Amino acid sequence: MRLRVLNVKSIRSVHTFHPRRAVVYVPASDKRKIIKSQTLNADTIVLDCEDGVSINKKDEARQNIYELFQNWPDFGNSEVAVRVNSVQSKIYKEDLKAVLGAKNLPTTLFLPKLDTKEEFREFTEELLTIIKERPEKNHKFNLLSYVESARCLLNLHELVRYVLDASTTSENLLMQGLVFGSDDFCADIGATRTEDAKELLYARQYLITVAKAFQLQAIDMVHINYKDLAGLQMQSIEGAKMGFTGKQVIHPDQISVVNEAFSPSQEKIQWARDLIAEFEGHQATGKGAFNFRGHMIDMPLVLQAKNVLKLAEAMPKKN
Amino acid sequence: MRLRVLNVKSIRSVHTFHPRRAVVYVPASDKRKIIKSQTLNADTIVLDCEDGVSINKKDEARQNIYELFQNWPDFGNSEVAVRVNSVQSKIYKEDLKAVLGAKNLPTTLFLPKLDTKEEFREFTEELLTIIKERPEKNHKFNLLSYVESARCLLNLHELVRYVLDASTTSENLLMQGLVFGSDDFCADIGATRTEDAKELLYARQYLITVAKAFQLQAIDMVHINYKDLAGLQMQSIEGAKMGFTGKQVIHPDQISVVNEAFSPSQEKIQWARDLIAEFEGHQATGKGAFNFRGHMIDMPLVLQAKNVLKLAEAMPKKN
Amino acid sequence: MRLRVLNVKSIRSVHTFHPRRAVVYVPASDKRKIIKSQTLNADTIVLDCEDGVSINKKDEARQNIYELFQNWPDFGNSEVAVRVNSVQSKIYKEDLKAVLGAKNLPTTLFLPKLDTKEEFREFTEELLTIIKERPEKNHKFNLLSYVESARCLLNLHELVRYVLDASTTSENLLMQGLVFGSDDFCADIGATRTEDAKELLYARQYLITVAKAFQLQAIDMVHINYKDLAGLQMQSIEGAKMGFTGKQVIHPDQISVVNEAFSPSQEKIQWARDLIAEFEGHQATGKGAFNFRGHMIDMPLVLQAKNVLKLAEAMPKKN
Repeated sequence: MRLRVLNVKSIRSVHTFHPRRAVVYVPASDKRKIIKSQTLNADTIVLDCEDGVSINKKDEARQNIYELFQNWPDFGNSEVAVRVNSVQSKIYKEDLKAVLGAKNLPTTLFLPKLDTKEEFREFTEELLTIIKERPEKNHKFNLLSYVESARCLLNLHELVRYVLDASTTSENLLMQGLVFGSDDFCADIGATRTEDAKELLYARQYLITVAKAFQLQAIDMVHINYKDLAGLQMQSIEGAKMGFTGKQVIHPDQISVVNEAFSPSQEKIQWARDLIAEFEGHQATGKGAFNFRGHMIDMPLVLQAKNVLKLAEAMPKKN
Repeated sequence: MRLRVLNVKSIRSVHTFHPRRAVVYVPASDKRKIIKSQTLNADTIVLDCEDGVSINKKDEARQNIYELFQNWPDFGNSEVAVRVNSVQSKIYKEDLKAVLGAKNLPTTLFLPKLDTKEEFREFTEELLTIIKERPEKNHKFNLLSYVESARCLLNLHELVRYVLDASTTSENLLMQGLVFGSDDFCADIGATRTEDAKELLYARQYLITVAKAFQLQAIDMVHINYKDLAGLQMQSIEGAKMGFTGKQVIHPDQISVVNEAFSPSQEKIQWARDLIAEFEGHQATGKGAFNFRGHMIDMPLVLQAKNVLKLAEAMPKKN
Repeated sequence: MRLRVLNVKSIRSVHTFHPRRAVVYVPASDKRKIIKSQTLNADTIVLDCEDGVSINKKDEARQNIYELFQNWPDFGNSEVAVRVNSVQSKIYKEDLKAVLGAKNLPTTLFLPKLDTKEEFREFTEELLTIIKERPEKNHKFNLLSYVESARCLLNLHELVRYVLDASTTSENLLMQGLVFGSDDFCADIGATRTEDAKELLYARQYLITVAKAFQLQAIDMVHINYKDLAGLQMQSIEGAKMGFTGKQVIHPDQISVVNEAFSPSQEKIQWARDLIAEFEGHQATGKGAFNFRGHMIDMPLVLQAKNVLKLAEAMPKKN
């Protein structure tokens, strides 16, 4: 078993819409798991330097990622991202040095526990210091940041606006999504996880609201009990219905369940196609709101149908 | 079947408290439905130029409203309002020209998809341009605006404060309520409507909070499946208990169910009267918190009882 | 039956962490109830001058508190706090004069219906005027304020930040917690209390978020039906799982139920000890995320376990 490598010299970051249904964590200190993850074909593989790696394994994790990006690794259809340590931890600097020192640059970074504008400023400055020495000094990384504390949630609107404003000027980061770190959040507010996650409802819905107001992806919490696929399915479907666009995953078995929940069903796609066809017919003949399969249809439902088709098109053909 | 017309020459806008329990949409392009709505005696009839009217019927809708307001139409106890198209659509200007061109002016406007202060500013300027040519240039319209996007929800507190501040100066608009456009909101955040509307809980409760902080009415979402009166009843009662003051309605059959849910019951009114009487007795004899029918009663419950009686008084005698 | 008095001359306010699981109201106008409350050993006894006392008994309530603090009363392990009337009511000034006129000063004040910064400013100025005449002019009172209106909830983030900023300079108040006044809040937004309190979910979760973002305690609503101990237990456990740290209580029978719900169980404490031990072992041997009793454990869960142990240590030994 060894790393699969692509022949291409360098693959440029492409900032087109990339779906992130299953976001799979792989401890970067574990080479065996990294190699296994190359064939998972999940939407996103996150090479983790943070909570999945104990302190005395951090260097090993960084070294593994460095070696990986000395070539351009072949992960099939998967996006390969790196989760560095938080700005508060300070050791994210070591992560960046290793990750950004290899021949190729990852397209996407996951930044945990981003609570304040000041932390983002510090992170971008550190990033710039390293990247400006490289020929790709204008490289723009996709960024997904984490909501993991009450403080972050309270400041989220302001924080996201700040990060996005920064993105439009000279920054090297393009925010694409928000990730809900449910267990750190629970610990922070002193809550206890329950089956239906009632204790997290406001936090999850507010995260969705902020994400969608700025056209960002919203990635739902991990289902920790990785053997309980029925529970995972229920939670995934519920999350998708709430407006989340994907879900964090800690075990390969969870991927297909999550992918299915966050993909529009064939039935839904057909419903959307039929509704749009009917709508265009009615527009032509001049009738407004109309009945479609027993429901009164108006613009919002037409818009929903269009979104379903847009998502269906963006999904990778395989899986 | 023809339009019922009042003999009065002109009816001035009266900004007293008007309950808006059932807010009924009528596509203004459909003369037959308009005429039918004149005898519904719902609290509010909304002549719709927006989502209920297809693009090639918009002119017909405007013409119907214009003709209606050339006389003062007789809608019984109902308030007659007009829902124009959104500021983003630009075509609201055509709506305003038609609606404000007739001999009489409607008392109330419904403004959909109001997301930003800039849109409100644009709307008021357009309104002023038209209205200042009329003798009633100081006419003040009641305004209800819609929450239909994540962006609007995020900015709602600031937006409502801005609109109300504008109202107190030289504006022609007096904001009286917020309306939740659930289907556009769902489409905007990528949510799917479920039976118990869990995906909308935060949005609905935040809307109520902002509305009540500024003494505004809060109008709950449409129950789309208009044949399911049992479901409508459940959703109406739940909405009323959450603090909504009324509900949007798309079919005449829905009106009485909604009216009942948003009216205090005779039993509740009696409870309120008895509690207030008991309270006044205790105040006189100097006892504070007291037992009333097995519950400890203090000021908040007394306040609730007073609100019930105030609402009961404001309800129209019929229906 | 008479007041139990301590021999100590004066007990200084100690701003160490004091758990406030059961927060018990005693109408300060009722001397018999005050005396009874001295042996309850609840975490906090609140001598109430506000809603539990009718207007013509307010002076009696103030006089009782004054007499109580002429000595230092013996309430066992309980903290003795005073709830004054709201700033809006104006009569809080009479409360302060009485309460702060006695030989000893209470360590803690509960301030209801604090909606705005201006009200807080007024309150602190009034307090300063009285306290600066005393030798203990730098006395710092613990403060817990109430969320009882939509307006307060909307401004809560800004309000708490303001109050805490003021605390760090020359003020005599140190905010330690937020208390949810559910019935006043319901009356304010026109909601009706239901069994599962769905109508209050956003308000309660937002209060928790603000409280925890600033390291404050979050005290949940009263369970009004004081005979329904099963219902109280369910609501207490749910509140604790949501992140509340305590609950308001109106009857002595409610105390032990609430104490139990807001204390970590022996089982939970043992779980936390074992997890921490296991974690430290893994850190030593260099494994990161690990399996513990069938669950994948990472930093957030370790953090939760540490919080459980911290709380267990802070609890009074007796119950």
